[in-house]
Order: sequence, then C-alpha cells, then structure tokens
Amino acid sequence: MAAIVLGGGGFIGQHLCASLAQAGHEVRAIGRSGPPADLPPNVSWHQVDFTQTEQVADQVGSGDIVFHLIGGSTPHASNLAPTADITQTVVSTINFVARIASRVRRLVFVSSGGTVYGIQPGILAETAPSQPTSAYGINKRTVEMYLDLYRHLHGLDYCALRVANPFGPKQLNRHQQGVIGAFMRAAVENTPVTVWGDGGIERDFIYIDDVVSAIVAAAGSPNLPSRIYNIGSGRCRSILEVITTIEGLSGAPLRKTFTPGRIEDVPSVRLDISLAARELDWQPRCDWQAAMEQTFEWYQHEYSGQRQACRTTGKST
Amino acid sequence: MAAIVLGGGGFIGQHLCASLAQAGHEVRAIGRSGPPADLPPNVSWHQVDFTQTEQVADQVGSGDIVFHLIGGSTPHASNLAPTADITQTVVSTINFVARIASRVRRLVFVSSGGTVYGIQPGILAETAPSQPTSAYGINKRTVEMYLDLYRHLHGLDYCALRVANPFGPKQLNRHQQGVIGAFMRAAVENTPVTVWGDGGIERDFIYIDDVVSAIVAAAGSPNLPSRIYNIGSGRCRSILEVITTIEGLSGAPLRKTFTPGRIEDVPSVRLDISLAARELDWQPRCDWQAAMEQTFEWYQHEYSGQRQACRTTGKST
Repeated sequence: MAAIVLGGGGFIGQHLCASLAQAGHEVRAIGRSGPPADLPPNVSWHQVDFTQTEQVADQVGSGDIVFHLIGGSTPHASNLAPTADITQTVVSTINFVARIASRVRRLVFVSSGGTVYGIQPGILAETAPSQPTSAYGINKRTVEMYLDLYRHLHGLDYCALRVANPFGPKQLNRHQQGVIGAFMRAAVENTPVTVWGDGGIERDFIYIDDVVSAIVAAAGSPNLPSRIYNIGSGRCRSILEVITTIEGLSGAPLRKTFTPGRIEDVPSVRLDISLAARELDWQPRCDWQAAMEQTFEWYQHEYSGQRQACRTTGKST
Repeated sequence: MAAIVLGGGGFIGQHLCASLAQAGHEVRAIGRSGPPADLPPNVSWHQVDFTQTEQVADQVGSGDIVFHLIGGSTPHASNLAPTADITQTVVSTINFVARIASRVRRLVFVSSGGTVYGIQPGILAETAPSQPTSAYGINKRTVEMYLDLYRHLHGLDYCALRVANPFGPKQLNRHQQGVIGAFMRAAVENTPVTVWGDGGIERDFIYIDDVVSAIVAAAGSPNLPSRIYNIGSGRCRSILEVITTIEGLSGAPLRKTFTPGRIEDVPSVRLDISLAARELDWQPRCDWQAAMEQTFEWYQHEYSGQRQACRTTGKST
C-alpha cells in the first residue's frame, strides 16, 4: 500500500509527505512543478499536471490511499475567473476519480471549512447548508458531491475534510493565501500589510501539524460514518488578534493599511469540530502561541535580510 | 420588458412560452433546434446553441426576465458521462449569467426536486442536505450555488424552483424522460414497458399546468425571501399507481417487463411544498385523474395508429 499525495508540493502537501514518510509509508508525491528542495529522500516525486488525469491515475495502484490536496485558485481569484476552477480542478477530479474509484483503498479530499458555508451565524456543523460566496467554495462543495456520487455508484471509500484556515512553516503566500504567513513575512521584511475591513474578521486558524494529524486520522480510521468533517482549532481569532501576536513576536508594530473589505470575505466562520473528535478520534493539540512562534521562526529564517543577501549572491550560508 | 425562455423548445419551455404569450408578454424563445411546429405566433424564435453564451446573452435586454429551462441530460445518462453536463450546461450557465447578471430583472431557474436531495427519509424541506445520486442532480445544485454567488457579488435577482416530476402533453419521452409519457405512449402503441425495480418507487408527479403557474409566480413575486423552492403536487404516487391509472384510461393492461432497479433511482422523494405556498402564493391546483386524462388524450392523438399511418404516407389527417 502506497500513499499518493496529489499536490505534494503545496503547503499542506509538503508537510503531509514528510509526516507519512517519517511514519515509514511509501509515498508518491505528484505536483505540476519540480520537487520541493527539501523533499524527504524516501518520497518519490512525479511531475505531472493534474489535468493529465490518465498519467496521474497511472501512479495509483490497487489498495493505495490517495490524498487529494489540489486546491485550484483562491476565493478572491476564483471570483475573477469563475469558470477556471470548474473546468480545470473539478473536471480533472471527476475524470481522475472515475479512473481510480474501484481500486483505491480510500481517497481523502481536503475541502474548505472557510468557504463552503458562506455567511451564516452561529457555530457551523457539517449539516449546515452550503452557501459559498466564492466559486472556490462552490467547487469544493461540488467535488464533495461527486465523491459521494462515486461512493454510491462505485463504492468509493472517501473522506472530505473541511479544513479551516491552516498556517505554519512553508506557507509561501503565493496568491495571497494565508494571512498569517503574509503578515509574518511583512514583519520580517518590514513591508506594509493590507488589512481588509477593520480587522474584525474572524477565522479559525489551525496549525499545520493539527491539519496533518487530521488527514492521517481520516486515512486510517476504520469507519467513517459521516465522511465529511470540519477540521479546525475550535477557536476563532480576529485579524487584529493575529496582528497583536505577530507584533509581540517581532517586537515591532506592523505597518498596517486598512482598505475596504472584500466581498468574498465572510465576517466569521465558526466550525463545530465535535464530529471529527467523535468519529475520527482526532483533536487539535497545538498551542496557539507556540505554533505562532515556530511559524515566525521559519519566516525569520526564510526571509531575513541575511538569507536574502545570500540568495542574491548565490552563496549558501 | 420581455420574457426570454432558454430551452423554449423543450417540454416545459413550450408550455411556458404559450402561457406567457397568452398573457400578452413579449416572448423570445431560444433553442438549439428549429421552432416547435405549434409555436404561438407572438413568440419569436432564436435558434442558438446554449454554449454560444455571447449570442444567447445578446437576446437579453435590460429589465428582461430570463427563464432558464436548460436541463442537460438525464440522471441516468449523466452518470454514464459524468463530466458532460458540467462542461456544457454548468459552464455555459456561468458564462451566460456573468454576462447578464447586472441587467436582468430576474432569472428563474428550473432545478430538480427529484434529484438534488438524493436518498433521504421523510418529507424534504429546501434546507435538507443535497446528496444527489446522479451527476445531473449535482449539476443542478452547482448551478443554484452559482446563482446565489452572483446574487452576492453582483446583485442578481434569481429564483430556483426544485420541480418534482412533471408530466403532461408534449412530453416526448426522448432519453426516457418522464415515465408517465413513456407508459402512455406504450399504451397507445401497444408496446411493452420496462418497470425498474418492483414498481414501488414513488415520485411526486406534478402536472405541467401547475409547473407553469409556479414558474410564472416565481417571476412575478415581489419578494423572494428564500429564493429556492420545492415545487410539487404535494403527493407521492408509486409507479404501480401510475400504471393502474393508465390502464384505467386505456382500458387494457400494459405489457410490463420488470427489471432490476437502477442505481440512480431514489426510492422515494417527498417534497415539502409549504414554502412556495407561503412565499410565492402558489399552490398546485390540478386534479390527478383529470390531468392524466388530458395527457392521455394528447398521447392518443399523437401516437394513434391513424396518425402513425399518415406520417408514414406523408399525408395529413
């Protein structure tokens, strides 16, 4: 049995590959670019674009577990090109699943706790209606429904995790993904940050180690009565609270620019994570302050002036 | 203000065009084929494939009301080609809506009460989760979510009607749509009918006049607090009950062949239609027996031996 990680070069993918390899699993990572610099030696890398579903499916053997971490774009970008994700990620996912549904042991899909629900009051259980305010969120929900269709039609064993806002080392905020990473990089490089709205927007930020442990639990759990699970820290924090923590770590105020809120940003997402606790025997275990410290150390190392200078001259430290 | 009917040549489309024209509205019907033979004189016909979204959008003027009746394939066919509807109907709908969202007065979308819910016990309100057992149902739900996204982002005024199983004259059972039409035609032509399962499958069959009145109510209602409404007769009938009624009308037993149930057929769909009653001031008014009689008369006229013979010789009656 091998672990196939689709999107192995992304933020979650890199951490998941490292965790699975450390636990002794055979890991095949698939990404559209070349391998990450620090790919563990016992992870094999396959450079294939996900739209080449036949080639991707060729990597999947009988009894393998597939981790689908291919996210498409971002909520903001998806609304600027509202058919891009559907014609690429969603259709490729359906074509891929059609090829592997009958032979995989399980498929674990990383969905989005922050976008599938949209604007709703209260603490959201998985049964809350889906009212996404972005094409990104719609497409995550559409993939969930297709996975359930393949369960019904062809017996696909799947689990979809509606992960809240993950953060941690290696979240290189391409496409403005991950406000914590973006703000930490700005703190290190002393560049200004843009705060949409008044900073009162709340998110459930979850440390990457807790995300990975949830994905591993979803892959290994013998039974999945509900199949779709919220994965979060169980606590909401405002953007202003994030800023305060980062300023405490860096010892200096961030250079903040406040701009009007973006229409796809929901004011608050509070996820009920009790179903995952009961059915996956999973709990978030990371301490906020310690997780933020570890993350900040990585950004300091990655984006400090010294390292920047070395990159420019091409010398290693 | 004009009424634009996308899918004007289909079963619901033809009845809707006739009703709107009779009420004095300017009607522009759009279909991929030529106009139906009995198109009312004051309905203009525009032959455009829906994938040509720019040409379709060109027919929509400021303040027009758009009726979107383009259904894609059928539940059964959609599962045999699970990306066909998404790449055609769903993507075309998004591209079309992106072009007209800011200028239409309202868009009324005919969704599917029989497929968006999937297999669930009890009487289903609109808040019940979507668990479709066909790509057809998933795609209907995906379009609903995109319409709501365009409401959120661009102020689109829309209404989605989750219509149960419609029946009535002119339902030419292409692609095996509409079991009542298929069985009535078989009764007239004395050909065998295939009954999937034991005939105990239940559906909420709604007469076409009630469907049209619901669509007209959705277009004209000043406020739409909920936007998504179940539209059904409020009663379930089994396939065997349908057969009994048809046999009563024809005076002869149908030649039935029972075959194993199809996997996409849900055993029962019971729709709660009270929300439409409250918010659209709409009620189904048609009597089952009278509606079945009217429908059977049409099938007799359409498929009787005399007419068949005339078709063969090319002479008119």
